[in-house]
Amino acid sequence: MDIAILLYDGFTALDAVGPYEVLSRLPEAKVYFVAKNKGPIITDNKILSLVADFELSEVLNPDIILIPGGIAGTLASTKDEIILDWVRTTHRSSQWTTSVCTGSLILGAAGILQGLKATTHWFARDFISDFGAEYVNKRFIQEGKIITAAGVSAGVDMALHLAKEIAGSDIAQTIQLLLEYDPQPPLDSGSLEKASAKTIEIAKGAVETLMA
Amino acid sequence: MDIAILLYDGFTALDAVGPYEVLSRLPEAKVYFVAKNKGPIITDNKILSLVADFELSEVLNPDIILIPGGIAGTLASTKDEIILDWVRTTHRSSQWTTSVCTGSLILGAAGILQGLKATTHWFARDFISDFGAEYVNKRFIQEGKIITAAGVSAGVDMALHLAKEIAGSDIAQTIQLLLEYDPQPPLDSGSLEKASAKTIEIAKGAVETLMA
Repeated sequence: MDIAILLYDGFTALDAVGPYEVLSRLPEAKVYFVAKNKGPIITDNKILSLVADFELSEVLNPDIILIPGGIAGTLASTKDEIILDWVRTTHRSSQWTTSVCTGSLILGAAGILQGLKATTHWFARDFISDFGAEYVNKRFIQEGKIITAAGVSAGVDMALHLAKEIAGSDIAQTIQLLLEYDPQPPLDSGSLEKASAKTIEIAKGAVETLMA
Repeated sequence: MDIAILLYDGFTALDAVGPYEVLSRLPEAKVYFVAKNKGPIITDNKILSLVADFELSEVLNPDIILIPGGIAGTLASTKDEIILDWVRTTHRSSQWTTSVCTGSLILGAAGILQGLKATTHWFARDFISDFGAEYVNKRFIQEGKIITAAGVSAGVDMALHLAKEIAGSDIAQTIQLLLEYDPQPPLDSGSLEKASAKTIEIAKGAVETLMA
């Protein structure tokens, strides 16, 4: 099971690392962190870098593609034909094509969400229809072999679902236990439905600053 | 608010990246990924590397210290006097000293959990008493300025609690919404209490393989 995780300037680290921790524990999984150029790839806040060990052209037939999000970096990538070509090429032969957060906008820009239901970060929910997809307010949604997840931390839930689809419940449950994924958030403000109007306003302002 | 996240060969990526995504969003946060040597630091499964931009000696007065876990890598670090000295030194002036997963064993080896309640990954729960700490089965536990979290994904819950302690509920709730941290695990096997005997047995075998 070859798993390609796309890195690009300005991606959000947890979008990639959450699903990676799940999927890399699948039996015989081989994970490839790929980018336009090998080496350290800087994340959205310009602090942390993750290392891509492979160029896009070196990983053209992965079984799973995972596209992380990252607001400003994502929007740049939706106009990057080298990245979009890689997404289209690998999607043709993939068993699963997946995204986390605004990563679905890259899938959309590659033309593969046309007519499908999809999700993304709540902030970007109005953008996904630009690519012919219908936004749904779910933690993740599967349409055939394509699975899109909501913002950042939703990638872990999506990846556990995918692990179950691929390897069955026993293995997916074992991975969940290894990661001790028994979430107990000390606050209850993780979605638009749960957050206060004030929290939503501050959060929107923070994202708009990131995009500017 | 200077935040130092320790990286060492064999750490678990999500232990560091989960809390980082929370804490880096605190107002005026400055995050430093530190290691014995600058450059890419390989994680537990020898696939992914995160980049440390600072050597230990360059970051001696952080406000927050975060120590990730990683079973085999952690056990090596508990015998590494350079790492332990850095933990002792930074702990002296820190406002908060924190760990995720088996990272608490490094705090323990540095001598700072003596007589305190602490937690760790469920697999390592019998090891923590070697360092004079009393294991508690909680998602995270705060003892004065020291907070230890349970395995891997527990770091996100711990970091949200810490964000609230430092910056108040409004900001912590905003960070939770930005990360869309509204977990909905598709399986319910994330703790020893919830997992089946079979799942626990397979998971133990997997960790023992990692340690060997």
